[in-house]
Amino acid sequence: MSSQSKLKIIPLGGLEAIGMNITAFEYEDTILVVDCGLSFPEDDMYGIDLVIPDISYLLENKEKVKGFVFTHGHEDHIGALPYILKQLNVPIYATRLTMGLIELKLAEHELLKTTRRKVVSPGQTISLGQMRVEFIKTNHSIQDAVALAIYSPAGTVVHTGDFKVDYTPVFGDPIDLQRFAEIGKKGVLALMCDSTNAERPGYTPSERTVGRTFDTIFAEHRSSRLIVATFASNVDRVQQIIDTAYKYSRKVIVEGRSMVNVISTAEELGYISIPENTLITLDEMKNYPDEQLVLITTGSQGESMAALSRMAGGIHKKVQIKPGDAIIFSSHPIPGNEKSVSKVINELYSKGADVIFQDTHVSGHPCQEEIKLIYSLVKPRFAIPVHGEYRHRIAQARIARMLDYDSDHIVMLSSGDVLELSMDSDTAAVTGHVTSGGILVDGLGVGDVGNIVLKDRQRLAEDGVIIAVLTLDSDGHLIAGPDIVSRGFVYVRDSEELMEEAQEVVEDAVQDALDRKGPDWASIKNAVRDELGDFLWKRTKRNPMILPILMEADA
Amino acid sequence: MSSQSKLKIIPLGGLEAIGMNITAFEYEDTILVVDCGLSFPEDDMYGIDLVIPDISYLLENKEKVKGFVFTHGHEDHIGALPYILKQLNVPIYATRLTMGLIELKLAEHELLKTTRRKVVSPGQTISLGQMRVEFIKTNHSIQDAVALAIYSPAGTVVHTGDFKVDYTPVFGDPIDLQRFAEIGKKGVLALMCDSTNAERPGYTPSERTVGRTFDTIFAEHRSSRLIVATFASNVDRVQQIIDTAYKYSRKVIVEGRSMVNVISTAEELGYISIPENTLITLDEMKNYPDEQLVLITTGSQGESMAALSRMAGGIHKKVQIKPGDAIIFSSHPIPGNEKSVSKVINELYSKGADVIFQDTHVSGHPCQEEIKLIYSLVKPRFAIPVHGEYRHRIAQARIARMLDYDSDHIVMLSSGDVLELSMDSDTAAVTGHVTSGGILVDGLGVGDVGNIVLKDRQRLAEDGVIIAVLTLDSDGHLIAGPDIVSRGFVYVRDSEELMEEAQEVVEDAVQDALDRKGPDWASIKNAVRDELGDFLWKRTKRNPMILPILMEADA
Repeated sequence: MSSQSKLKIIPLGGLEAIGMNITAFEYEDTILVVDCGLSFPEDDMYGIDLVIPDISYLLENKEKVKGFVFTHGHEDHIGALPYILKQLNVPIYATRLTMGLIELKLAEHELLKTTRRKVVSPGQTISLGQMRVEFIKTNHSIQDAVALAIYSPAGTVVHTGDFKVDYTPVFGDPIDLQRFAEIGKKGVLALMCDSTNAERPGYTPSERTVGRTFDTIFAEHRSSRLIVATFASNVDRVQQIIDTAYKYSRKVIVEGRSMVNVISTAEELGYISIPENTLITLDEMKNYPDEQLVLITTGSQGESMAALSRMAGGIHKKVQIKPGDAIIFSSHPIPGNEKSVSKVINELYSKGADVIFQDTHVSGHPCQEEIKLIYSLVKPRFAIPVHGEYRHRIAQARIARMLDYDSDHIVMLSSGDVLELSMDSDTAAVTGHVTSGGILVDGLGVGDVGNIVLKDRQRLAEDGVIIAVLTLDSDGHLIAGPDIVSRGFVYVRDSEELMEEAQEVVEDAVQDALDRKGPDWASIKNAVRDELGDFLWKRTKRNPMILPILMEADA
Repeated sequence: MSSQSKLKIIPLGGLEAIGMNITAFEYEDTILVVDCGLSFPEDDMYGIDLVIPDISYLLENKEKVKGFVFTHGHEDHIGALPYILKQLNVPIYATRLTMGLIELKLAEHELLKTTRRKVVSPGQTISLGQMRVEFIKTNHSIQDAVALAIYSPAGTVVHTGDFKVDYTPVFGDPIDLQRFAEIGKKGVLALMCDSTNAERPGYTPSERTVGRTFDTIFAEHRSSRLIVATFASNVDRVQQIIDTAYKYSRKVIVEGRSMVNVISTAEELGYISIPENTLITLDEMKNYPDEQLVLITTGSQGESMAALSRMAGGIHKKVQIKPGDAIIFSSHPIPGNEKSVSKVINELYSKGADVIFQDTHVSGHPCQEEIKLIYSLVKPRFAIPVHGEYRHRIAQARIARMLDYDSDHIVMLSSGDVLELSMDSDTAAVTGHVTSGGILVDGLGVGDVGNIVLKDRQRLAEDGVIIAVLTLDSDGHLIAGPDIVSRGFVYVRDSEELMEEAQEVVEDAVQDALDRKGPDWASIKNAVRDELGDFLWKRTKRNPMILPILMEADA
């Protein structure tokens, strides 16, 4: 029995779905937070732009929070930061490209001046209160990704961030496997490892394999204009497209706001190298024949307003798709986007273009053999699968079991869980639960749309709304209405009979209620809701929202 | 130059997306229609239950229409029939199981008595006016699927329906390749062939391969309760599950309304054979230990109200998922359903169950080598790829080009096109266009929800609605209101300040308008819409629907 304090690991998001990654590490009076991501709304979150984590726990322990540490610059790891910094202004630590992408966001939110930020390099270690954090070079679908070794008096936790093992990366060094081994050799309390691809056997191929595919495609399409859609943040992918374009003497145009932003940041910071006279503007495109052009564009996920979708839909101002064009999707559809991607592909084909999506993408996450490798280098006492839906994390748990971890040493956490563990104990226990969850952002509103508003939006979407208005005088006599107005229910001009009958139903309901109870607003409203609701259900099997509105005239 | 009439092929649906298959074949005064399917609503068709084809063209040519001929019993080929028969009562022709499934629908719509129907067998030929139709045995993911040879004086068209080449089907005969060859040898004007899998190389495996997987899974999970989710209509799949259950001495429960319906129809008609004492009811389940049970259930697509989804969500009245259960997904997610399927899988895992989805499904559609085989047997003059999105049909067009068809002999149709062709001409030309498209069904309403109503629903879903009501007296003086009421916009209790300001904006707008133009309803409404809209956009960057409602009090 020891009196030593335990390390608390408290995920505040990221475990129920992919996105919104944020995890607090707490040792005595020190809290450090890894990542601060957003997630995109679920299909039934109508009108919501994005979802950010609930950081009530951090706000309640404000004085303990020493800073945010970032693993890489993807939205699901940095995207919520501007919103969170407005509530909790603490220093932030990130590698150069990650910080560059964070700064783009801070500038938009006018937070650059007020945010203390420190750029770190892989290999470096920083101190945050009673803990230290070492940044370890990894590979991912964005450069400058790092894993973290979090050193606390209760033991060391290795957090992989999102990663893959790429022995032959396009830019910079391969993942620092030696350092993983070295830290592992000294004893690691827990490993928090990326689960995204844990259902997939084998290894994720090197980013370079995509470069070889590009070479083949460029060689086979010498007379086509080429348009390549990929993720704006995949700087290495863009580098390979530019390299191939240069080899085949093509000029490159970069299109789509986020693509332009990321590429210019990456170029400024030296993460991409563009040969002179290769980049041209969209307006200069007309000066070159098709076979000398490559367009790199956003929209690989079929996002309706992205550049490629606008080209496919024929509403892009400067690029018209035409027969002979070859469009390369250098991406896979993220689950949920399959139909919108297919829509864009269909539109491109129907304009006579060729569409290519074979071997044009590799994942940035580890498959089963890579996960086994990291476990075997780090040899943690506890396995804590992170980053992925439950199915992915359970797949990693199965891998851990194959590696002889017993179920007591594999921890399946939920967001909000407080996990306590330390080197001098052989148990890791969830000892509490803190507030966690998503805060909805809609336009400028943060948190002003909750479940009630969402449920109303869902109901309005399903069958529309019918409003019944009437005015009583101060003696309680009906002096105007009841009138009914509907939106999203039926096309009124084609349903005059139904709407006239509905009007009569409301009139009868109001008169009845007045006769029975006089000007009692609640009974009038209930009568309208019940009678009209019943009538419409019987006649249409629909259930629109019914809104009775009563007014009283000035005496 | 010949005076012979041409055959017209007029697809009325099914070419823009998967679903809603219906094609008219017209020769002089004879029209016959192949299939009459529905499609499911797109994601942005809020509140819509299903979509049926617009048959204006058939109604305009009512006297020519000799009947409907069906290729198989799937919803996208038979589902719209009850709605269409109410407008156009003509005889229908289908194989036994297909007719059985059609009759389930006709009974629901009380159309059994009024519908002339004829059961046909593969190999049989029927006459419809100046044309004859031969039914040719094929294989598909439902039994009793047929291809059609449509004989007209202008030439023969072979329509494959949905099919695959299964040399070792679970039930009945393999596809009648000899007959395809024989008809082909006599000369075929056009082949309309299934494109669904035309992007996939190779062959679709035999249905029997799934049976072998079931055997392995049953052998490896002897102590688990087994739950298998699959498509209700895949009778062969259900047969294989039952056979495996019998081999491993397990009782079988069938759960989910559509599953129960299809299985009982199939059993009645002899398309499934269930060993005695194998089937038990859900209520008898408690009398058997887990290792003696197999549940066959609907919900393999994550449909929110299907039996498996209710089990996974913990809201099924009679089946609770528990650790030790093994759930087999004998299906692939249909594009668009990936996220809902994943949700169910996550829920099942989190209840401690095992989930299996490897090698547990094969497609019912032909891959590239099967398509080449059919082309090589039929050797049509014209290739008309059908059944699939544009990307799939263009993939079949590419296959045809590989088989040396020139582009003049490959016809990419759109719904509504009138294609004219005949054996004594070497051109196939689209000579006109008829009305086509989807009619939306919402509850009991058929066609009363159109674009205007849908656009309103989308707007209501996005940002909600704000209603501003006021009453004027007969002299045009404001005597009640303006009051504002909102739904789906913000949570009003947390946004009192905003709503109070909005109220003031409306009051000012109304007063201004009254001062300027007096009781002119249009100016008052416009003022409210403009001023309130601007105010809310500035404050929230949201764009709710604004509904001004004016009433006039009785004098």
